[in-house]
Amino acid sequence: MAENTTRTAYTVESLLAVTVEVFNERGYDGTSMEDLSRAAGISKSSIYHHVRGKEELLRLAVGRALDALFAILEEPAASSGRSVDRLEHVVRRTTEVLLTELPYVTLLLRVRGNTATELWALERRRDFDHRVAELLRAAVTAGELRSDVEARLATRLLFGMINSIVEWYRPGARSADGVADAVVHLAFDGLRAR
Amino acid sequence: MAENTTRTAYTVESLLAVTVEVFNERGYDGTSMEDLSRAAGISKSSIYHHVRGKEELLRLAVGRALDALFAILEEPAASSGRSVDRLEHVVRRTTEVLLTELPYVTLLLRVRGNTATELWALERRRDFDHRVAELLRAAVTAGELRSDVEARLATRLLFGMINSIVEWYRPGARSADGVADAVVHLAFDGLRAR
Repeated sequence: MAENTTRTAYTVESLLAVTVEVFNERGYDGTSMEDLSRAAGISKSSIYHHVRGKEELLRLAVGRALDALFAILEEPAASSGRSVDRLEHVVRRTTEVLLTELPYVTLLLRVRGNTATELWALERRRDFDHRVAELLRAAVTAGELRSDVEARLATRLLFGMINSIVEWYRPGARSADGVADAVVHLAFDGLRAR
Repeated sequence: MAENTTRTAYTVESLLAVTVEVFNERGYDGTSMEDLSRAAGISKSSIYHHVRGKEELLRLAVGRALDALFAILEEPAASSGRSVDRLEHVVRRTTEVLLTELPYVTLLLRVRGNTATELWALERRRDFDHRVAELLRAAVTAGELRSDVEARLATRLLFGMINSIVEWYRPGARSADGVADAVVHLAFDGLRAR
């Protein structure tokens, strides 16, 4: 029984890894269960043994990215201390999660909102952005961040910079740490030499 | 004769404005001459009177964005003075051009490389990025920018931040100046209060 559970869990996991690659390549709308079956090398009925269909696979895939992002907000360094330090931690870890969960976050960022699952994902993404914007606002109020850049605009530029990494990052070419350091340096202290 | 030239120029200009909206909405690949004819409210033969086809319209549209971007590099403030000041000028003006030529730059950023025109546009975009990266490198060498963020990575993050603006900016909601100021503040001095 335990063995069977493990086997099943492994299969959903690996099915998801294949699915997310196909979704990213062909787009969610452009992917059929037939495409997934071919890419995974298993029959459609085997896929239906694990999930109800394409939309559930999407929910599991973007859910994985969202869970990893929301988990950051629960980390000790994100939930206590000065607002600016909490924000810095969240910015660093968001970059790291984007890099370690690259295909899942890429899929999340491409969600457009045509299905209930996509609308749910967009809503949770917005929630995450709002939580970060609140932290940023708290740091401005505390005098830890400059007040001449409006918080909503700063948050957008910050996420714009972080999210753009999915467009060019290839695992192995650079360390996740190096990229996260660069994001934190640029975002908090800027490129100017001091 | 002069009147006729003006009339023709106006028509190509307005045809281009409609075209770029349709390309951005349906994608270049997903747009037919029929779609353009319907959106512009003129016959296909009227369109063919001005351009050879869809690909020439794409070339004119992305060419407009590219010309505006390359023109920045020729501006006095971009071509003389300290490297860091030249770079700051280029970053500010690139943001402004993105906002004032929003549909054209949006189209340019979505080019994927399936046709000769798309490959040409990607090549010119890369040229522009390289010119900015060179300026950034010169500023690092001069000790004006921090040396602990690698120039290529810094350029990518910088353009990632600027280019992401096309995803949310709606003309009128914010001034182009305000957005450009925020980009310059964040990129050069960071969000931290001093």
